[in-house]
Amino acid sequence: MSGKSIRVDLEQPYDVVVGENVLANAVDSTRHANGVVVVCDEHVEAFHGARLAGLERAPRVKLPRGEAAKAFAVLQRTLEHFAELGLERNSMVVALGGGATCDLAGLAASLYMRGLAVVYCPTTLLAQVDASVGGKTAINLAAGKNLVGTFHQPRAVYADTATLATLDAAEFRSGLGETLKTALIAGPALFERIEASVDALLARDRDLLSETVASCVRVKARFVVDDEREQGPRKVLNLGHTFAHAIEHVAGYGRIPHGVAVATGIVLAIETARECGVLRDEALHERVVHLLARLALPASLAELRLASNCALPAHALLAAMRLDKKARAAEPRLVLPRAIGAFELDVRVDAALLSERLR
Amino acid sequence: MSGKSIRVDLEQPYDVVVGENVLANAVDSTRHANGVVVVCDEHVEAFHGARLAGLERAPRVKLPRGEAAKAFAVLQRTLEHFAELGLERNSMVVALGGGATCDLAGLAASLYMRGLAVVYCPTTLLAQVDASVGGKTAINLAAGKNLVGTFHQPRAVYADTATLATLDAAEFRSGLGETLKTALIAGPALFERIEASVDALLARDRDLLSETVASCVRVKARFVVDDEREQGPRKVLNLGHTFAHAIEHVAGYGRIPHGVAVATGIVLAIETARECGVLRDEALHERVVHLLARLALPASLAELRLASNCALPAHALLAAMRLDKKARAAEPRLVLPRAIGAFELDVRVDAALLSERLR
Repeated sequence: MSGKSIRVDLEQPYDVVVGENVLANAVDSTRHANGVVVVCDEHVEAFHGARLAGLERAPRVKLPRGEAAKAFAVLQRTLEHFAELGLERNSMVVALGGGATCDLAGLAASLYMRGLAVVYCPTTLLAQVDASVGGKTAINLAAGKNLVGTFHQPRAVYADTATLATLDAAEFRSGLGETLKTALIAGPALFERIEASVDALLARDRDLLSETVASCVRVKARFVVDDEREQGPRKVLNLGHTFAHAIEHVAGYGRIPHGVAVATGIVLAIETARECGVLRDEALHERVVHLLARLALPASLAELRLASNCALPAHALLAAMRLDKKARAAEPRLVLPRAIGAFELDVRVDAALLSERLR
Repeated sequence: MSGKSIRVDLEQPYDVVVGENVLANAVDSTRHANGVVVVCDEHVEAFHGARLAGLERAPRVKLPRGEAAKAFAVLQRTLEHFAELGLERNSMVVALGGGATCDLAGLAASLYMRGLAVVYCPTTLLAQVDASVGGKTAINLAAGKNLVGTFHQPRAVYADTATLATLDAAEFRSGLGETLKTALIAGPALFERIEASVDALLARDRDLLSETVASCVRVKARFVVDDEREQGPRKVLNLGHTFAHAIEHVAGYGRIPHGVAVATGIVLAIETARECGVLRDEALHERVVHLLARLALPASLAELRLASNCALPAHALLAAMRLDKKARAAEPRLVLPRAIGAFELDVRVDAALLSERLR
């Protein structure tokens, strides 16, 4: 019931509470709010809405499932709904759902009356280990993923690991993709712990899940506190993401789960690092490919194309990468690994080399 | 050509450059940008686009005139356009136009890739004395004015008073409404200077315009630096605005110019202050009414109804005021004057009293 509490020590500090049934405590963060609205994935609300003890009667703004929520029309509808509910500057938004729900609800909160407080209640592994911490909000444009958004830190995060029991296998695997990314960034200890506990992870062992989510949140919180606006070190959290966003964009949003695209993106980043002479740990590629196979995640672009039944043409992927937020002069800038826990940021990679890699 | 420069001394300080032909210098602020786009009112672009020396070939994103720009569809179109132009994180947005253009362009800049730099080139008196300084951006919702927005400070502001020569009479008068508000807040010296120079102001005397704009910017900059996020003293800048936003909303956006609504809102605030026992300076009402008459601005709600041919029913105005951003528990909180330069903030006013006032 109590859970572990991880402090994100920014100018306005907040806690990420991780554990079984911690959603029952979310109401604590809303005590001083003048009006509360729950923004939720309608599917998730049916499963887990009742876990928000004390907030059963707060009005619900329901979003379409998954990536479809991250659209302009949904943002506009949500904001108009806030006005109809009479929300005020000291009202509060509680987001209940996966990463897309948190991204949209956070953006709506940051824009309404120039900023309402938001509390995240992530219900997917992906959102618990990554999306709900750090204050990035976003929607997609026709031209690319997460091109529109704000930095808006939440007031609190409640990562209730009991909600992970109902995730379907594909969604759970997607979360494992971001978990793997975080472990690679964190360093050998967490990575080895994950290698050593694949079976228990896949069996969704409760204690292990809580411990893993808490570890990932600690890693992310450290980078966010060091560099809230992603001017420098925080960029490492984008490992695999320039590839992943291009993959998701070219496949069509929602077709390939984010964490699955990230898994493939990590392999592509390792391969690119090898070809650029950045990679030091020659065993890394095999080790990651082996782990991905055990997690039933695609370990190459070829495998992803096959599994997703998407063509993902090289030229389209490259074009999408040029519009990545980190690109400069239409040249993608990549996070490339030297070894577990060691990275180079902002690496300029030759387009011909990339194009070859994406074939 | 050089103009006066007023420093807005925030964490990232910027200058507001005021004077004839200062638009020719705007290019200086874009030297380090990787790509520049000019977001402009198409009407203004035809008149003044060529004044942006060195930026003649920067692509233009054209907005509908006036308040029609502050809509969700325009925001979405603008952001998609940014992506098509290949803008990147270190690209720059130059806004050329009135307050609505600056509000929309600033919001789009703050959202694209979570924040591009923006330079404002306000071309109306209203935008020069008020909208372009302080970092507030906004669009309207069906439910109310400026309900969606961000705080996003510009990198620089170029208030070229030469552009004021082409304003039509109605737009110029609207700017005088915000000028009057600023003078009331500033204190007796500026207010008396305006009383003493009405004829020269209406004749658009060049030196007087530059001096008046600079004075207003100095006043606004002072409050913005003290309280960037409007937690306290900055609220005084909303004098008359709760009334004004309700008037604009009920009339239909764009029907009554913002500064005209503000002028009427100021009179309503003085009358409300008198009835609440807040007003100390008994002569203030007559003095402001007299000045408004000389400026051809409506000096009462009745006069505004007649002049605008809008019914503006009391119950509709009151309903709109309840959704004001400063309201709490659906009770409007008003800025009320004690005297020139002396105000009470966050005053809770009885609905029955307000309703009577709005009849």
